[in-house]
Amino acid sequence: MGSRASFSAAAASAFLLLALGPTLPSPAAAAPHLPRAAQTLQLSSLPSRAPAPAPAPAAGLSYKTHYLVQQVDHFGFDVNLTFKQRYLIADQYWKNDNGAILFYTGNEGDITWFCKNTGFMWDVAEELKAMLVFAEHRYYGESLPFGNLSFSDSKHLNYLTSEQALADFAVLIEYLKKTIPGAKNSPVIAIGGSYGGMLAAWFRMKYPHVVIGALAASAPIWQFADLVSCGKFFEIVTNDFKKSGSKCSETIQGSWKAIDRLTSTGEGLQWISEAFHLCNPLRSQTDVIMLKSWLAETWVNLAMVDYPYSSDFLMPLPAWPIKEVCKYLTDPSASDKVLVQNIFQAVNIYYNYSGEASCLNTSQTATSNLGIQGWSYQACTEMVMPICTTGISDMFEPQAWDFAAYSDQCFQEWGVRPRLSWIPTMFGGKNISSHSNIIFSNGALDPWYAGGVNENITDTLISIVIPDGAHHLDLRARNADDPESVLLARTMEVDYMKKWITQFQGHR
Amino acid sequence: MGSRASFSAAAASAFLLLALGPTLPSPAAAAPHLPRAAQTLQLSSLPSRAPAPAPAPAAGLSYKTHYLVQQVDHFGFDVNLTFKQRYLIADQYWKNDNGAILFYTGNEGDITWFCKNTGFMWDVAEELKAMLVFAEHRYYGESLPFGNLSFSDSKHLNYLTSEQALADFAVLIEYLKKTIPGAKNSPVIAIGGSYGGMLAAWFRMKYPHVVIGALAASAPIWQFADLVSCGKFFEIVTNDFKKSGSKCSETIQGSWKAIDRLTSTGEGLQWISEAFHLCNPLRSQTDVIMLKSWLAETWVNLAMVDYPYSSDFLMPLPAWPIKEVCKYLTDPSASDKVLVQNIFQAVNIYYNYSGEASCLNTSQTATSNLGIQGWSYQACTEMVMPICTTGISDMFEPQAWDFAAYSDQCFQEWGVRPRLSWIPTMFGGKNISSHSNIIFSNGALDPWYAGGVNENITDTLISIVIPDGAHHLDLRARNADDPESVLLARTMEVDYMKKWITQFQGHR
Repeated sequence: MGSRASFSAAAASAFLLLALGPTLPSPAAAAPHLPRAAQTLQLSSLPSRAPAPAPAPAAGLSYKTHYLVQQVDHFGFDVNLTFKQRYLIADQYWKNDNGAILFYTGNEGDITWFCKNTGFMWDVAEELKAMLVFAEHRYYGESLPFGNLSFSDSKHLNYLTSEQALADFAVLIEYLKKTIPGAKNSPVIAIGGSYGGMLAAWFRMKYPHVVIGALAASAPIWQFADLVSCGKFFEIVTNDFKKSGSKCSETIQGSWKAIDRLTSTGEGLQWISEAFHLCNPLRSQTDVIMLKSWLAETWVNLAMVDYPYSSDFLMPLPAWPIKEVCKYLTDPSASDKVLVQNIFQAVNIYYNYSGEASCLNTSQTATSNLGIQGWSYQACTEMVMPICTTGISDMFEPQAWDFAAYSDQCFQEWGVRPRLSWIPTMFGGKNISSHSNIIFSNGALDPWYAGGVNENITDTLISIVIPDGAHHLDLRARNADDPESVLLARTMEVDYMKKWITQFQGHR
Repeated sequence: MGSRASFSAAAASAFLLLALGPTLPSPAAAAPHLPRAAQTLQLSSLPSRAPAPAPAPAAGLSYKTHYLVQQVDHFGFDVNLTFKQRYLIADQYWKNDNGAILFYTGNEGDITWFCKNTGFMWDVAEELKAMLVFAEHRYYGESLPFGNLSFSDSKHLNYLTSEQALADFAVLIEYLKKTIPGAKNSPVIAIGGSYGGMLAAWFRMKYPHVVIGALAASAPIWQFADLVSCGKFFEIVTNDFKKSGSKCSETIQGSWKAIDRLTSTGEGLQWISEAFHLCNPLRSQTDVIMLKSWLAETWVNLAMVDYPYSSDFLMPLPAWPIKEVCKYLTDPSASDKVLVQNIFQAVNIYYNYSGEASCLNTSQTATSNLGIQGWSYQACTEMVMPICTTGISDMFEPQAWDFAAYSDQCFQEWGVRPRLSWIPTMFGGKNISSHSNIIFSNGALDPWYAGGVNENITDTLISIVIPDGAHHLDLRARNADDPESVLLARTMEVDYMKKWITQFQGHR
């Protein structure tokens, strides 16, 4: 593959909610250590579709913030340093005689943001008489082992692994059980979404003495090595666009070559920069690759957050945002310029639904609550998730999965080499049937469905598929526009959790 | 406790088969980096009880030696170094269509020595059509991550942990399954004794996708934190002596004060040095503490290897060696000098059954096949096993368990601090019922029985107690003098393994 075909993998280069890891040049890859600039200028010429701000997080989420001193290195004794892990506790619904502890296994971002976006836990707290705990993942939010130096080099990043994060969770839960009156014998259930869902599942697998079960929502635990086909991810993205509007995916599919043709001249570079209202005009063919990468990532993100109601997760968005986007993508046979202008209208829904963007910044594709540096490093070490495109079964430019190039990019960026087969070695790959009490829920609209567990493995390793669900819709707060399938999923999830709790209490 | 009472914990200071970790001054603690001197001089005045050399390891153990390149750090990416792990393979009994792989999870010593002392695996290989694999534990034998520098400081020792060792085993098995024709779908069973038994059990707990079950022989997985009483270990030692000869434990119990009285003068120090045929005469009260520590360790070792036939495990010994020893320990009311002379006769059975010792060296208490430095470090980091004596329920001088002193000693010796509760946090403590397919076998004569699993936990977490067994007698080769109880234990073990294999084959 030449460099022109590099965008689809590069689209996967930043973080997503989960990121797919780094690849060829992308803004994030080129300057991973630069702080993301906040745009405050208002460019009045940009259309605003939603004058009112996007819905605020559900009100009334009352919790207390705590910190626990943790070992920086649980798996070695030479470095005996500690850091403060942040965690949030909401105990207003907790009954310490027979209530549970619902423990969110924090993923790659600020834990308060996950707390606000996991309304499911708040919605079921009373029914389960549950204490809610949200544990921040090391190297994200405030839980930085070396403060400002945490991302400075591979030495300081050395303790950013899923195993260390799981050990933090285990130590934290033991601490809570020891110090909170009445918590000693409380059953603990791990809950997480996306990478946090992987952590929830893995936590139950590795620490079944700490958690009696796990709800792993949209957790692509099989998007590793050769466990699933690398092409499925972008096929799902494509299908989401295909069914959201006539000619929608075809229009996107045609846009890549239109962009190539238009940007073949200096004049074209300037025109397209203006057409996309780019904060930083395109100056080279490398910038064009980045533009396409940014577009691809935008389509991926839309597929993840294609929720049935107006929401503000990665970005403030209308209900069923892909349908909104596809309204502009109906004519693949339009002229190159018209096609590109339509593409702009489409992505502008994603980037400027609130109407506040002064220009579009291709170096950021989602909320700043996610930790782009940490995830980029994780994707370059353990979290290697092979993704590819064919250009035939998907609407993207073809890009094979090239581990050697990926590894070189990682080495250049972080000074480390990814280990392709480590996660399956550690966590069992597809051979997980000896574990128990894990619910794997996946939305069929979600690209990460591709790497998820979508069939029951045993009668205690349960798959719940939500046909109308995007990325962990089930973990979001109740909404009047929730489809029936997610209501059913949540009911099943609560039923399983109650069953685990009853079993646990019977065994004590 | 004053320093005079320090010997019982110091006795636990070297390694055992398992060691109990470091404490107050002991030869091993004082000079952990000195190579152990081999004594070659023959002192003809020393009585020889066994002119013929002790039985050689069973003949006909034919295996091939291999090496696998492993990551030095499985849990971090900054150090991307590798080392060669040694492993042995015997495949002469293996049937690759339906045979098993029996995988010895090597512990703290040279793997060829464990291979020779695990006759059980050789005895059952044909019946199970099994390939035998013996994997060396990193930092022992030839598997040194940094060659001669491996023990030079806490930086080089940083990768000596049970978690790293388990990861080595998992990577090795995946490699074998990938590269040995016909091995891909072979069921693998982990087998280990002592610390190797802990590793076998933990391996099944953490990597159930790699091994279908584990035989954990004499594995004191509960000799951690406050899971069991710290005094039970030495009570078992005491009981072994109590029932092996009239007045035997009382004689030992009286010996400590006799030694104190005799060594209160310079003349007495000289007399006792000669009475014990010490290679290095006593020069101070610190040396006296070390002498008592060495004696206590000798009694412990005898309890571990109190086998029903002549053997050569920690040392060449007669059948039921404690009975032999106790023949000299019948008169607790003898004069101090006579009592001490009797103690010498007793320990001389342990140290000089072959008649080849020129003098007794208090800095070594067992075979040099064990890795004293590696284990001392492990006992100072993860493998903290609280042990104490009362002087009332046991025949030793009273010594409380003093973690603070233990930790200080570790810091002085290795520059690291032990983490008391880490192993239970990691491996579940007593809360292991969600795991499956582990046999915990324990000999009731073995002091490590104290920290073992001696009741069935579920119908797949099985305890087998061998009333007449010392330290993992069941793993030793068949012997005409085997007691009925160990024959029964081995039959049960093989039956369980067959059941696991059948279940595995049924699920494929």
